[in-house]
Amino acid sequence: MSLTIGVDVGGTKVAAGVVDAQGKIIEQLRRATPSASPARTEQVIVEVVSELLSGHQVRAVGLGAAGFIDETGASVRFAPNLAWREEPLRLRVEEVIGLPVVVDNDANASAWAEVRFGAARGHAHVIFVAVGTGIGAGVILDGRLYRGKWGMAGEPGHYRVVPDGRLCGCGNRGCWEQYASGSALVAEAREFARRSPGAAMRLLQLAGGSPEGITGSQVTQAAREGDPVAVRCFGTIGGWLGQGLADLAAILDPGCFVVGGGVSDAGELLIGPARAAFEKALTGGSNRNMAQIRLAELGADAGIVGAADLARGSGREPAGGD
Amino acid sequence: MSLTIGVDVGGTKVAAGVVDAQGKIIEQLRRATPSASPARTEQVIVEVVSELLSGHQVRAVGLGAAGFIDETGASVRFAPNLAWREEPLRLRVEEVIGLPVVVDNDANASAWAEVRFGAARGHAHVIFVAVGTGIGAGVILDGRLYRGKWGMAGEPGHYRVVPDGRLCGCGNRGCWEQYASGSALVAEAREFARRSPGAAMRLLQLAGGSPEGITGSQVTQAAREGDPVAVRCFGTIGGWLGQGLADLAAILDPGCFVVGGGVSDAGELLIGPARAAFEKALTGGSNRNMAQIRLAELGADAGIVGAADLARGSGREPAGGD
Repeated sequence: MSLTIGVDVGGTKVAAGVVDAQGKIIEQLRRATPSASPARTEQVIVEVVSELLSGHQVRAVGLGAAGFIDETGASVRFAPNLAWREEPLRLRVEEVIGLPVVVDNDANASAWAEVRFGAARGHAHVIFVAVGTGIGAGVILDGRLYRGKWGMAGEPGHYRVVPDGRLCGCGNRGCWEQYASGSALVAEAREFARRSPGAAMRLLQLAGGSPEGITGSQVTQAAREGDPVAVRCFGTIGGWLGQGLADLAAILDPGCFVVGGGVSDAGELLIGPARAAFEKALTGGSNRNMAQIRLAELGADAGIVGAADLARGSGREPAGGD
Repeated sequence: MSLTIGVDVGGTKVAAGVVDAQGKIIEQLRRATPSASPARTEQVIVEVVSELLSGHQVRAVGLGAAGFIDETGASVRFAPNLAWREEPLRLRVEEVIGLPVVVDNDANASAWAEVRFGAARGHAHVIFVAVGTGIGAGVILDGRLYRGKWGMAGEPGHYRVVPDGRLCGCGNRGCWEQYASGSALVAEAREFARRSPGAAMRLLQLAGGSPEGITGSQVTQAAREGDPVAVRCFGTIGGWLGQGLADLAAILDPGCFVVGGGVSDAGELLIGPARAAFEKALTGGSNRNMAQIRLAELGADAGIVGAADLARGSGREPAGGD
């Protein structure tokens, strides 16, 4: 049996699992991330991997980290939430573990998992969009993870959708993730509650009366109950999402989009408006094929499964598919 | 000697040349395009190719056509300026000529020529942007022409840069090519001449006194002379161009952009403001490498040279480079 370990290194938690060649997680562990300290984060990674190794024969380890990874898969160039700067993560972990290690962006790992074992199985041209606090993405072209010249590809969350638009954490204005993310959903709902507290009654009730208390999962809950304001907030975010997918389709013509991330738990509430906006906005619409827009299937496990599969050496060679 | 023929099939002219393996054009011909009739356009293609064949030993023929080409390189799905709809161009020309034929988009052919023999030699990740009446593009990733799932990739001219923006020929509003193309340059100059005829004196003089008479080449001429209004028009267009390149870099992280097309004859007048806007708008700017932005080197010959080289079988395999 060919087992590898996948580690999902996020700003709040380190999740690791032993994964088989079919993408099934055999055993899984989870720790808090000491995110302020790169050295201690590495120590936690080494600890969880060592613990998993004690019970399994494993060939290689894949790390998916929330940051910019260099094009060779060796270093974390920059990780906004992990205090890593030019960190030679691969070498550090390889030295201690004694197994081959590959490092990739966490969204790339999730994207790869969805292509290999999830919603985009059989597709060779896939854009995975993780709608969470911001927007992460992974791009699979011709069956391979596409990383760009310097490993920085797949950041559509920071293409500009509105000139002089909302201020983004990256320092620019009008970035897509300021309009189509979980943060945008919450901002929309809070703004609504401030301006029309009567109409936003259900949301305010869930939030304990204060617009500032409204959370993303409360908006999802209210929308599932049919609350028109919450449904409308998803419509707005979904509309921006679909427009962005149409822009990406103009540039890359993928066969399939996969929408994941925490906000995608809302399912059709998000994807329905996104599909409608996509079909309306796609250039040359009637003279071309339309990409599928699918919900991610692997949920929070995608990062582990994808990193483990990348450790197996896939991702740099075509996965097959159309 | 290994010769192929490249044919550049545009809305107004068919240009064909015999090209050697180093991208040098040995002999060249040019005819008007009978664009209203697909059958007569094919006849013109066959005629110029036959005439070139009479004097040279040729292995294969490449056609670059201004339209959407299917993913197998066999048919023109849709060509707005050539009246072609689902036209099996490859088969038709192969039958008469008796040589292997490949068909690709004209911007793809030009992009490929610049990567193989022009401004992007040695680069594996290149986005070629042809700034003409509209914006055409070709995308080379990992050393290969990227066509997308259905052959429709590389149309960034129709990603949306302004919500509810200017109406585009594609039916949508706010497309990039409405802000960063030759049409946009001329529209800007005319608008300026209407509103401030005194300031736009030089432009009006060149245009025979009427704002509506101002052409793109007149704006270029005036800008070269240092006319401040014309220079400012290039600054506006160049700014939109650079912003778009930054958006493409967020998504694809190429090593090199090549700017071609008729408007790029203005050189630094266009590229200077584009570079400035690109550097300002690129997300994560200080934590990443910046792609080069270079002027195309092969000019109007790029379509012929690229189509001929694609006929040689390259473009589907990596070209090497970084």
